[in-house]
Amino acid sequence: MERSGAVSDDIGIGMVGYGFMGKAHANAFHKLRYMTWPPPLVPRLVTIAGRSEDAVAEAARRYGFEGHATDWRDVVADDRVGLFDNLGPNDLHAEPTIAAARAGKHVVCEKPLGRTADEAYDTWRQVEATGVKHLCAFNYRFVPAVRLARQMLEAGEIGEVRHFRASYLQDWLTDPLAPWTWRLDAGAAGSGALGDLGTHVIDLARYLVGEISAVSAATRRFVPERPGGRVTVDDAFASIVEFEGTALGTIEATRYANGRKNALTWEINGSKGSLAFDLERLNELQVFRADGDRARGFRNVLVSEADHPFWGWWWPPGHIIGWEHTFVHEITHLLQAIAEDGEVGPYGATFEDGYRAAEVCDAIVRAAETGRRQEVAYRA
Amino acid sequence: MERSGAVSDDIGIGMVGYGFMGKAHANAFHKLRYMTWPPPLVPRLVTIAGRSEDAVAEAARRYGFEGHATDWRDVVADDRVGLFDNLGPNDLHAEPTIAAARAGKHVVCEKPLGRTADEAYDTWRQVEATGVKHLCAFNYRFVPAVRLARQMLEAGEIGEVRHFRASYLQDWLTDPLAPWTWRLDAGAAGSGALGDLGTHVIDLARYLVGEISAVSAATRRFVPERPGGRVTVDDAFASIVEFEGTALGTIEATRYANGRKNALTWEINGSKGSLAFDLERLNELQVFRADGDRARGFRNVLVSEADHPFWGWWWPPGHIIGWEHTFVHEITHLLQAIAEDGEVGPYGATFEDGYRAAEVCDAIVRAAETGRRQEVAYRA
Amino acid sequence: MERSGAVSDDIGIGMVGYGFMGKAHANAFHKLRYMTWPPPLVPRLVTIAGRSEDAVAEAARRYGFEGHATDWRDVVADDRVGLFDNLGPNDLHAEPTIAAARAGKHVVCEKPLGRTADEAYDTWRQVEATGVKHLCAFNYRFVPAVRLARQMLEAGEIGEVRHFRASYLQDWLTDPLAPWTWRLDAGAAGSGALGDLGTHVIDLARYLVGEISAVSAATRRFVPERPGGRVTVDDAFASIVEFEGTALGTIEATRYANGRKNALTWEINGSKGSLAFDLERLNELQVFRADGDRARGFRNVLVSEADHPFWGWWWPPGHIIGWEHTFVHEITHLLQAIAEDGEVGPYGATFEDGYRAAEVCDAIVRAAETGRRQEVAYRA
Amino acid sequence: MERSGAVSDDIGIGMVGYGFMGKAHANAFHKLRYMTWPPPLVPRLVTIAGRSEDAVAEAARRYGFEGHATDWRDVVADDRVGLFDNLGPNDLHAEPTIAAARAGKHVVCEKPLGRTADEAYDTWRQVEATGVKHLCAFNYRFVPAVRLARQMLEAGEIGEVRHFRASYLQDWLTDPLAPWTWRLDAGAAGSGALGDLGTHVIDLARYLVGEISAVSAATRRFVPERPGGRVTVDDAFASIVEFEGTALGTIEATRYANGRKNALTWEINGSKGSLAFDLERLNELQVFRADGDRARGFRNVLVSEADHPFWGWWWPPGHIIGWEHTFVHEITHLLQAIAEDGEVGPYGATFEDGYRAAEVCDAIVRAAETGRRQEVAYRA
Repeated sequence: MERSGAVSDDIGIGMVGYGFMGKAHANAFHKLRYMTWPPPLVPRLVTIAGRSEDAVAEAARRYGFEGHATDWRDVVADDRVGLFDNLGPNDLHAEPTIAAARAGKHVVCEKPLGRTADEAYDTWRQVEATGVKHLCAFNYRFVPAVRLARQMLEAGEIGEVRHFRASYLQDWLTDPLAPWTWRLDAGAAGSGALGDLGTHVIDLARYLVGEISAVSAATRRFVPERPGGRVTVDDAFASIVEFEGTALGTIEATRYANGRKNALTWEINGSKGSLAFDLERLNELQVFRADGDRARGFRNVLVSEADHPFWGWWWPPGHIIGWEHTFVHEITHLLQAIAEDGEVGPYGATFEDGYRAAEVCDAIVRAAETGRRQEVAYRA
Repeated sequence: MERSGAVSDDIGIGMVGYGFMGKAHANAFHKLRYMTWPPPLVPRLVTIAGRSEDAVAEAARRYGFEGHATDWRDVVADDRVGLFDNLGPNDLHAEPTIAAARAGKHVVCEKPLGRTADEAYDTWRQVEATGVKHLCAFNYRFVPAVRLARQMLEAGEIGEVRHFRASYLQDWLTDPLAPWTWRLDAGAAGSGALGDLGTHVIDLARYLVGEISAVSAATRRFVPERPGGRVTVDDAFASIVEFEGTALGTIEATRYANGRKNALTWEINGSKGSLAFDLERLNELQVFRADGDRARGFRNVLVSEADHPFWGWWWPPGHIIGWEHTFVHEITHLLQAIAEDGEVGPYGATFEDGYRAAEVCDAIVRAAETGRRQEVAYRA
Repeated sequence: MERSGAVSDDIGIGMVGYGFMGKAHANAFHKLRYMTWPPPLVPRLVTIAGRSEDAVAEAARRYGFEGHATDWRDVVADDRVGLFDNLGPNDLHAEPTIAAARAGKHVVCEKPLGRTADEAYDTWRQVEATGVKHLCAFNYRFVPAVRLARQMLEAGEIGEVRHFRASYLQDWLTDPLAPWTWRLDAGAAGSGALGDLGTHVIDLARYLVGEISAVSAATRRFVPERPGGRVTVDDAFASIVEFEGTALGTIEATRYANGRKNALTWEINGSKGSLAFDLERLNELQVFRADGDRARGFRNVLVSEADHPFWGWWWPPGHIIGWEHTFVHEITHLLQAIAEDGEVGPYGATFEDGYRAAEVCDAIVRAAETGRRQEVAYRA
Repeated sequence: MERSGAVSDDIGIGMVGYGFMGKAHANAFHKLRYMTWPPPLVPRLVTIAGRSEDAVAEAARRYGFEGHATDWRDVVADDRVGLFDNLGPNDLHAEPTIAAARAGKHVVCEKPLGRTADEAYDTWRQVEATGVKHLCAFNYRFVPAVRLARQMLEAGEIGEVRHFRASYLQDWLTDPLAPWTWRLDAGAAGSGALGDLGTHVIDLARYLVGEISAVSAATRRFVPERPGGRVTVDDAFASIVEFEGTALGTIEATRYANGRKNALTWEINGSKGSLAFDLERLNELQVFRADGDRARGFRNVLVSEADHPFWGWWWPPGHIIGWEHTFVHEITHLLQAIAEDGEVGPYGATFEDGYRAAEVCDAIVRAAETGRRQEVAYRA
């Protein structure tokens, strides 16, 4: 922690952004202090930045920050800050994050890391060069059920993976009168369902199965004009993903799936068994073992017991946790890496993971535009 | 029924093939006589043909056929036969079916109609020219829940369709020592998971959503050599299907999905609601209505009540039916068309539907081989 | 089969009743001829009896009976009949069944065997004395998933049973204007939800767990007057059942559970695991094994594979069967016992099982009336 | 807030107990400060008491209390404390809670309020007499899905209730070597599954359906001796509950249901629809409306949208919450009542509710012991 000077067991937090993700991250910083005990470092909420003075001042009071700012540069310049947490819109990911790293702060950046693979690559390389710890907030790696899946796959319990099929379905744009937001603008967001939802799935595909080597894809923009502005991003995409080796997959995301609220579902079929997951029931993992037991079938594992990942932090068996808890796990994981000068990967997503997901996104865009399968090449 | 001469209210059935599909069709011919009352025509089981004299003789006794034959030509030549039911392997679909139609018999042919679009087209056109009724046995159109879905879509209850995502998953090849069968031979079967499972999904896509205009695809052959022979067909495929209009879909099939036994699942998202289905729970239809009710959510409709399709035939509400019942509905539908000189389509699949599914299959093969999106052009 | 004289490999069937249960049994007699091969005996549908000449004549044509009668005594007197199948209303169970047995016919009687324990006891003892085979049609013993559960319990895989909780829920009386039927009349039916639905659950409790030694209960009659008549039976009951040993259970049945169509559900908790079942998804058995596997959870076993009970008769894995198939299994089981002079029990329900269920029913009635726990004593 | 003097917008919290419930309540006090904004009162964590000096000192540091004590009397005597939160074992509910109320502190007491109806009655009456606000921590009233159910019932959307069937199943005692705890001692706990789990269900029964007027019951003690001590409470109970009016119910609880971790499930059948709930999937409410829609069926309502109870506090739709969030809602509800001098009931459980649940528990014990239905009489 000598990088940021003042802290010893504490680490000063500087946050940019105070919307829904700000609430989620602020909650994590508060909660990890007592849910895991002792915490690797004690977060000290130093300052939070946002463009609107009134709003950010209220956010600071609400979330317990000592101060606030209207310019992210003030956060970067603040010596008390040891960890810079960037929750801004996608077009404010690169510059502030790089600046913070250069100022010696560890950095968290919300996904997608960049609007393009080039931007993400540049962010990764520049931050990496500073030597700080970096985490791209693919928080679904920190769902206990997802971690359990990863452990089972690592242990070979599922065998060789043949199939990965996943989709991330929401429905908040089914109403053609739902208003325009920055998430629908290519300049601010880079892409639509692809960057917002698809990157989560791509990251899980890489985390659980392995590197993606080729993609085919199609995209859709169902409602090009909305109250408040033009839609210049994709509303939905569908893709075929081919992994290194032989595994075959599909990844799809949309904001037009009526009745699906936050339905990130994936299924993995391997030579020894299968796994399936649904984010709307994130405490459960479906597990099939091809073990010859006559009573075989998908088991609904309620991942909430003493021998399950992260469970020591929480409650007695079956007392389920919520979506926001993934951030508690994720931020604590990062603080552990900072405290021990350990690695963020492979269980946490680094900026390299953020970049690699962006490379897949770019390939999906190219495949959709050209109608041709695209190889995915990763830069070192 | 004057085509086949001897029958009046009866119709003579001549069947080719006596394996598992023979049992399913024989059951339908027996059962429709009393499950729907009065039946449109009374099936009279005249003759059944197969290559092995002993086996086909036993099948004839078992299923109550009056006689048997070892050459399908004898069935075609049999004057008592009014309906020719072809359940043979895929390389025996075209010739016997065309011959039977030319002999004035109505014809049922199992799917896929042909091993290629060319073969299927030829079969359709030649049979169509004879004026007999023809049905391609896409029996899943006759699941009550699927018919209900079709009715809701026709009535506009789901609105404009944006998404169709479907997969047909089985696991009987996950064991690399599972023995070779004709289904794994390109010459006999044409294709693998594509023709066997994928065609069912393609037909449902067309039946429920509309015509497919373009596809992208990839295929896999995970285990190229098995006890008893080489595998020369696809083990699995994944595809992106683009419908006329704007609907976007994915279709996938595999025989390597551990734990999935007969999992044909599809979901449709429209502007007013969504529908979802799983063949392993074929009595249920998931329905979401975007009606603003605070208590909104996917409804698990147990399609087993008086106001549901086909239900008058069966039992009190909630007394579920099985997979084989789809054949009872399908064959009765055909007999109705024969008795009334009505149409097999659009609720039953005609040979034109069989051909169109084959055209999509061919496009999927081309797309997989070339890595390029393929437009699908249908011949008249 | 010497009892009925004329048959050799055939067995003549005489049926009383042609309503919905007539259809279910007739289907079984037809279907078992080819679904299991060779069948233990070939049913020959000799005659069917009912009060209305027109209706029973049509039923005979529909179901393929050689003749019909309007008096059950004609069936009893018919020398061609080797198996007497009584599907009449509850007040026509005892006399015709006893008469048929005395005439040397094997007998099937629908549940409940008698309207009271006394009636059921008398029927059992008198029929038993004749030496014919007798089966009380508790067909849910013949659901493959239920048989699998029984096998697992017998093998000790679930350990010592601690809990049984079950309910049988239907909703056809929720509408207060639903018309009166004989099922609502105490004279004809004996009891309401208790005898119609509760007996099924009581039989399964005995079949799966063991003998019931005491009960506590309450009953309800929600709508005492309906179009067409007074309701003189229970609409619903709830009971606590105590088994020999220490297992504790609850059994409930109602016709007023809105949205539940045919929901017979039960769960068993034992010292080594648990089992759960829902008749609306009768192809599935939920199995929990307390085996220490980190991926533990209830498995959804799709009971449809080669190593599952009864599955040799049917289709490839995952091709599910329906409610009516239980009768195919049940009747075949009886024909096997007849052909081999074997036992109907313990897998089939004998008239003794029918009597014992009635004894529990009587105890439930007494417990509800007195508000006191009732011991259940069984006569030999 | 003038009762405790020093606070204005703040309220000083004094807590007794620091085990798993201490963590849950401490989390609520922290989290409500920012999850609902502005909070009705800002909790100030003044002091926490427990018997072990070391353990309570660490708990104080962990949960952010300003100080700690080893005698609950110090908390009662602390002028900074405005709200006394009693999480001690059941035999420490009455005395400290009454003392705190007499000292002018508002009080929260964990369930069951008392080990017997007498004890609970005395606690209620003595606390009520002081005029402070009192809440018995039946936190499941504050599950969003449960609140939605209550609102639908209040609005008449389910019609007249006919059935309530509920059970609370856990499995932590299935292992006969699971060690003894105070929860297994009649002196400390009062009762076993009944007081620990059953009271939750009884409270929900009263909250959702209405007052219970009579009960029949049986109890079990499966393993009377465990490592560390004798078991002197019930391991399980089953009961029939009869409500004022005609509704009929069953309530059961056990710690021996293998595979059920925290499975509080209930179902309500009314004349217009049904509701069902499972605490292991607490974000979901099953709703059936008997509205004649052909696409009728139980809807799986994901209670996570803007128009659902409590949802303004949390996340976008479908981003589910966890078990602990019920305490955030519950404590905030109490602080609201304190701040506005409003009522804790009927949405929060008062000590009167705690007493009434205890009265039902006592009746269940009497019914089990005597084998006779017990009327439940409530004292004013």
